[in-house]
Amino acid sequence: MSDKDSFIKNTDSITTGTVESVPGQGQASGSNNPEGHFDVHVNARKYYDIEKSPPPDQMFAWQRQHIQAHDQGKEGYPLNVIIDPAMREMYQHVHAQGLTNVFDRFSQQVKIRCNFCSQGLSCQLCANGPCRINDKTPRGVCGVDAHVMVARNFVYRHVTIGTAANIFHAQQAARTLKAAAQAPESGLRIRDKEKLYKYAEMAGLNTQNDMTKVALDFANWVLTDMGKPYYEESVMVQAFAPAKRKELWRQLGLFPGGGNSEVAFAQTKCMTNLNADPVDFLLTSVRLGIINEYQGLFALDILQEILMGTQKIHKTRQNMGLLKESMVNIVTNGHMPLVAQMVLELASSPEWNKRAQAAGAAGIQVLGHVCEGQQLMNYEGMQSLPAYGGQEGEWLSEEYLLATGAVDLFMFDYNCTVPTLPLYAKRFGTRMVSVHEVIRLPGTETVEFIPEKMQEQAGAILEKALESFAQRKQENRQVYIPPHTTECTVGFSTESVKQALGGSWQPLLDAIKAGSIRGIATVVGCTTAHYGQGGSNIFRIAKGLIAKDILVLSGGCTSAVMEYTGLTRPEAAEECGPGLKAVCTALGIPPVLSYGACVDIGKMTHTAKELADALGVDTNKLPLVIGAPEYLEQKAVADACTAIALGWLVHVAPVPSVTGSEVVVKTLTETTETLGLGKLMVELSADKTVEIYVDHIEKKRRELGI
Amino acid sequence: MSDKDSFIKNTDSITTGTVESVPGQGQASGSNNPEGHFDVHVNARKYYDIEKSPPPDQMFAWQRQHIQAHDQGKEGYPLNVIIDPAMREMYQHVHAQGLTNVFDRFSQQVKIRCNFCSQGLSCQLCANGPCRINDKTPRGVCGVDAHVMVARNFVYRHVTIGTAANIFHAQQAARTLKAAAQAPESGLRIRDKEKLYKYAEMAGLNTQNDMTKVALDFANWVLTDMGKPYYEESVMVQAFAPAKRKELWRQLGLFPGGGNSEVAFAQTKCMTNLNADPVDFLLTSVRLGIINEYQGLFALDILQEILMGTQKIHKTRQNMGLLKESMVNIVTNGHMPLVAQMVLELASSPEWNKRAQAAGAAGIQVLGHVCEGQQLMNYEGMQSLPAYGGQEGEWLSEEYLLATGAVDLFMFDYNCTVPTLPLYAKRFGTRMVSVHEVIRLPGTETVEFIPEKMQEQAGAILEKALESFAQRKQENRQVYIPPHTTECTVGFSTESVKQALGGSWQPLLDAIKAGSIRGIATVVGCTTAHYGQGGSNIFRIAKGLIAKDILVLSGGCTSAVMEYTGLTRPEAAEECGPGLKAVCTALGIPPVLSYGACVDIGKMTHTAKELADALGVDTNKLPLVIGAPEYLEQKAVADACTAIALGWLVHVAPVPSVTGSEVVVKTLTETTETLGLGKLMVELSADKTVEIYVDHIEKKRRELGI
Repeated sequence: MSDKDSFIKNTDSITTGTVESVPGQGQASGSNNPEGHFDVHVNARKYYDIEKSPPPDQMFAWQRQHIQAHDQGKEGYPLNVIIDPAMREMYQHVHAQGLTNVFDRFSQQVKIRCNFCSQGLSCQLCANGPCRINDKTPRGVCGVDAHVMVARNFVYRHVTIGTAANIFHAQQAARTLKAAAQAPESGLRIRDKEKLYKYAEMAGLNTQNDMTKVALDFANWVLTDMGKPYYEESVMVQAFAPAKRKELWRQLGLFPGGGNSEVAFAQTKCMTNLNADPVDFLLTSVRLGIINEYQGLFALDILQEILMGTQKIHKTRQNMGLLKESMVNIVTNGHMPLVAQMVLELASSPEWNKRAQAAGAAGIQVLGHVCEGQQLMNYEGMQSLPAYGGQEGEWLSEEYLLATGAVDLFMFDYNCTVPTLPLYAKRFGTRMVSVHEVIRLPGTETVEFIPEKMQEQAGAILEKALESFAQRKQENRQVYIPPHTTECTVGFSTESVKQALGGSWQPLLDAIKAGSIRGIATVVGCTTAHYGQGGSNIFRIAKGLIAKDILVLSGGCTSAVMEYTGLTRPEAAEECGPGLKAVCTALGIPPVLSYGACVDIGKMTHTAKELADALGVDTNKLPLVIGAPEYLEQKAVADACTAIALGWLVHVAPVPSVTGSEVVVKTLTETTETLGLGKLMVELSADKTVEIYVDHIEKKRRELGI
Repeated sequence: MSDKDSFIKNTDSITTGTVESVPGQGQASGSNNPEGHFDVHVNARKYYDIEKSPPPDQMFAWQRQHIQAHDQGKEGYPLNVIIDPAMREMYQHVHAQGLTNVFDRFSQQVKIRCNFCSQGLSCQLCANGPCRINDKTPRGVCGVDAHVMVARNFVYRHVTIGTAANIFHAQQAARTLKAAAQAPESGLRIRDKEKLYKYAEMAGLNTQNDMTKVALDFANWVLTDMGKPYYEESVMVQAFAPAKRKELWRQLGLFPGGGNSEVAFAQTKCMTNLNADPVDFLLTSVRLGIINEYQGLFALDILQEILMGTQKIHKTRQNMGLLKESMVNIVTNGHMPLVAQMVLELASSPEWNKRAQAAGAAGIQVLGHVCEGQQLMNYEGMQSLPAYGGQEGEWLSEEYLLATGAVDLFMFDYNCTVPTLPLYAKRFGTRMVSVHEVIRLPGTETVEFIPEKMQEQAGAILEKALESFAQRKQENRQVYIPPHTTECTVGFSTESVKQALGGSWQPLLDAIKAGSIRGIATVVGCTTAHYGQGGSNIFRIAKGLIAKDILVLSGGCTSAVMEYTGLTRPEAAEECGPGLKAVCTALGIPPVLSYGACVDIGKMTHTAKELADALGVDTNKLPLVIGAPEYLEQKAVADACTAIALGWLVHVAPVPSVTGSEVVVKTLTETTETLGLGKLMVELSADKTVEIYVDHIEKKRRELGI
C-alpha cells in the first residue's frame, strides 16, 4: 500500500534493487552488494532522482493516511515503516547508491537469524561451549538449563551494560561539574544554581558555602557514592527514592550500594558455574534498575541541568531541513552533551562567527542528533544560544544524515553512533571527531575529554569544523538537504510542567480525578528497523493513547517520532479524546510532552514521584504505564528494570530474547508484580498495546477509587 | 585404545549407552535421556559393577602408558581423556545410572555446536538482532563488522566478567580482614602479621599503630582504591606493579583506575552503537588485565594470606579416597575459603568433635574441592588444623564426587559450582549450603556471608552437617568411595620457594643461568571436557616441559591434574631432563610446584617480579611462558590479559571464540608484543605446545645473553 501511496509512486524500482551504477566507480553496486562501495573521492557521489516526500502542509495527513493502511510488514519494507519524510528521501538516495545502511542490513540479517539466539537459548561464555538448548539437549555442558541460561544472558548482555552506561554518564557529568567548580579556565558554567542548592541540601551537604564549594561537594558526594561497595547502602538512593519504595526494596534485599560495584557484582554472578538461580538473576536486574536510576538517569539529569539549565517550554523546529548549505554545520551526536554545550557556547560568540564568515560561511550552527539533540533542544541555557541549530532526527537516520553531504563536522561522545559512519564521512566529506575516550571509531579524529580544558577542546573542534567547511566550498561539493522540518513544542520536565500548571500539580491531579485525563503513558526509548516499527509503532500507539485521553510523555528517539509526526504541536489536541483535548487546548500544550532524550527518563520518574507524593500514594498506585514500543539496546533494558523497581507496568516490543524460559517469562511478567514491584508486558500489535495500556490505567484508577 | 587398555576392559557397553535401568524408577534411563532421572528417594541409587582403576602402585604407570596412545579424540571419549582414577570410576557409575553429567553433556552439545558462535560471529546485544556475520552478510544490523563484533564479544562475555569476579573476591577478602580487625566476636584471626605490616608499609600506611588498626587501614585502603573512578590512577597498581611496566602502561594509556569503575567503563564501551574500534577493545582488555591483577589476584592473595597464613611446603594426599564413610564429610567448594576457614577451625575444636561423636561419627573432616581445596591445602594455618581433610579434585569431578553418597554437606561460595549439583544432592543425600550471596542454587540452603558473625555462621553450617550425617546413618545409606589418593608435595609460593632456596633467589637464578633449568612455565587454569583435554592435555604438556628442563608452576584445576598424576611428588624428578632432575633431587622438591589455585596466579606473578628484579630486568625479559592448556572460563581470560600486560607469551587451548576476525587474532597474537606487551598463542597439540614453549624460553635466554 505505502508504495502505491499518492506521494510515493516510483519506489518499486528502488526497493527491488534495480539501481543505477555510481559514475566513476568500478564496482557500482545495488542492494546485492551488502557492503556497498565507498569511494574515497567525495565528489564521486551522486544524488538520484527519487520520489520526494509530501510538502510540509500535507505531511501530517500523509503520515496518518499511510499508517492507517496497516501494511508495515515485510512487503514494501522499509519504506512502509519509514514515516520521517527526510529519512524517506535519504534512504532512497543511499539505497540507490548501493551503500550499506541500517534498513537494508536488517533485510539481510532477518534471513539468517538464529532461533536459539532469539530465545536466549545460546551461551558463549566458556570454552566448553558454545552451547545451545533445545528439547533434546536441555542443558549446556556445564549443566545450565534453559532458565538459568536465559536469565544469565539477560543480565550480562543487557542489564549490566545498560546500568554501567547510565552510571558512567552520570560520572562524566559529575566530573564536569567538579571542573566547573575548580577550573575557571574550563569555561564551564553553573546555570541552575537553585537546583544545585536544592539537591545539595537533600544530600545533607553544607549549603552555607559559596556556589563553587557546594558544586564541588555535591560532585564529590555523587562520585563517592558511585564508588561504594555493593553491600553498603547508596546515600543517593536514600536521599532521592520514594520512602515506601525504599522500605520494600530493603524487605526484598534489593536496596543497592555503589553502582560500579553493583555492576561488577552482577557481572561476577554471571560467571560460568556460579549463580544458577534464574529468579535471583532477575531480582538482581531489578536491583540494578534501582541504581540505574539514582546513580544513573536521575543523577545525570540533575547534574546536567545544573550545568546547562533546566528545561523550558518553547516552540522550535526539528529535522534535516535545518541543515544550511551556506553555514558551517556541526552535528553533535550521542547522549552526553558535555563538550557539545561548550562548542555551542563558543560557536555563539562573535569571535567565532567572524572566523566562520572569514572562511566563507554565513555562520556556524550546532545541531544535535539523536538524544544529544533532544537534550540540547530542551535545556534553557542551550536552546536560547544563537548558534543552536536544532534537532536532526533519530538514530536510524544517522547514515542518511551524513549522506546529505551537508554535515561539515560530526562530533560524537557516546551511543548511538553507528559503526559505518566513518565510511559515510569519507564518502560525503564529513570530518568526524570523537570527544570522549569511551568511543573510538577507526579512521576518525579525537579530541580528548578533559573537563578542565573544555573551552580549549571546544575551540579545537570548531577549528576543524571551519577547515572542513572551507574544503567543502573549495571542492564545490554537491549537497542534498531534504527540505523537511516540523514545528514542535518541547522543553517539558517536572519543573516546567509544574510551572505551566501554575506552580502546583493540583490542576493535573484534578483533571486525572475528574477523568478528563485518564492517566499517563511514557512512550520512551529507541526506534528499531523491525517490520512494523521504524517509528511507525510509536506513532500509532501514541495516537491511540491520546485518542483515549491518556497524556503521553516521550523521551528518546520516540521524541523525534513525536516531533516529525506533529504530535508535539498544540494542534495535535484535535486528535485527542474530548477530555485531554480540553486540557491541552486550555493550556496551549500538545498531548505528547517531549521530556527529551532517553536519558531524560529520570525526569519522568521524578514527575511521577511528585505526583504520587501529591496524591499521598506509593509510585505503583499511579494510573501510569511505561512503554518502550521500539526498544533497541541495553540502557533501555536497564531502564525497564528501573520501572519494574518503581512498581510500573512496562510494555516492550520487539520481543526480548527471553522466550526460551518459561520461568524467566513468568517471573518478569507476573511474579515481580506479586512482590509489589512492576512487571513486563510484551505486545507487538499497536492496537492491542493501546488496549492494554488503557485497561491497566483504568484498573489503577479503580484501585485509587477515582 | 584406552578402552582396550588392560585396566579398562569393559567400558564399551557403557559408552555405547546400554545401561541398566535403575530399580524402582519408572523412567529408567540410559544416555538417551539427557536429563537423567533424579529420584527423590536417596536410597534408590545403586552403585554398578564397573571396571576399577588400577591400584595406587600401578596408577602412575598406567597414566603414562595411557597418554602415550595419543588417542584422546572422539573415539573412546570420555574415558580416553579422564586420567583421574577416582573420576574414571565415578563417571562410569553416574553414566550407568543415566544421570546428566558433564562429559555426556559435552558429547551432546558438540553435535549441535554453532559455527558462528564458535568464531565470535554472532551478536545478541540489541533488539534489531540477533545478528550473524558471514561473507555474504558482512555486517550486523547496526553496521558492526566481524572485527568489532568479535572484539566486543571478547570484552563483555569474558574479560569484564573475569575481572569483575577477581576484584569481587579481593573485595570480600578485604571485607573479612576488616571484620577481623573490628569484630572479635567474628572469631577471625590475623595469622600472618608480618605480611600485613609489609604490605601496609608499601601502601604508605602508618605501621606504628597496633595490628588491628593497621589491618583496618589496609583493608580500607584496598576498598577505597577499588571504588575510585577509572580515570584516577589506582594506588595499588602504583604500589605493587613493576616500575618499568608502569611506565609502559602510562605511555600506552593503559594505567588503570578503580577496578569496579574500569569494569563498568569497559562494559559501557560494549553498548550497541558505541565503541567500534577492535584494537581499542583489545587494549581495554589488557588494561582490565592490569587491574585484574593488582585489585584482584594479587590483592586477594595478600589478604587471604594475612588471614590464613602464607603457604608452607609439605607433603599431603589428594583425591576422593580421602572421604571417610565413618566421618562427617564436609566438602567446601569454590574459590573463596573465607567462611571455610572458620568452619575448619571450629570443626577442629574438641567441642565440635565431641558433638560429632555424639552423633555417631568418628569425627568431622573438612575437605576442599576445586580451587578452594587447592588453597586450603597450601595455607600454613589451614592444612595444619586437625579437621583438615584434604583436596578432593578438579571441577569436572564435582558431579561424580557427590555421586559417592559420602558427602554430608557441600558448602559453596563462588565458582566453580556446577548447576546440576542440587539434583545430585537430592539423589545422593548431600545437604548443600550457599555461604555467599553471590551464588544461589535453587533448592539449596543458605547461610549468609556476614564476616562480623563468621563464627556463628560457621557453627550453623556444622550443625547442618551433623544433622545430615545422622540422617545418612539413620537411613543406613550405601556409599561408594573410590579408594584413590595420591601423595603430593605442595605449598609453594614466593615466600616458601625463596625459603627453600635458603632465603635468596640466587640458587634458582644460578641454575637458570647455568642452563640446568632452561626456564619456567606456569601451567595454570581449568580443565575442559573437550576431546584431547579432560586433564590429559595438561598432563602431557607438563611431562614434556619437565623433560626439557623447564620448571613448572601450577595453579588451578591444573594443580589437581599434577597431583593425581604424581607430578607433584619429588619422585617425578626421574621424569625430568638431567638439569632439572639434579636441582629437584638436591632440593628434594618435585619438578611441578603447586602454587595452589587459579586465584594463586597472583603469587606466581609475584615470584616472577622478584626474579625479574633480582635479574635487574623488566618482567617481559624473563625466560617464562604462561600456559592455560585447558582454559575454561572468564577469570582465565582476564588472567591471560594480565599476563599479556606483564609482557609474557600466553598459550591457550581450546581455541577461543575470536577466530572470526583476522584483526582480533593478529592484534592478540602479534601486535601487542610489538608494543612491549605479551601476546597470545593458540595451540591444540600438546607436543607442539611444548616445542613452542621451549623455543620461546630459548629465545628469551638468548636475549638475556645466557
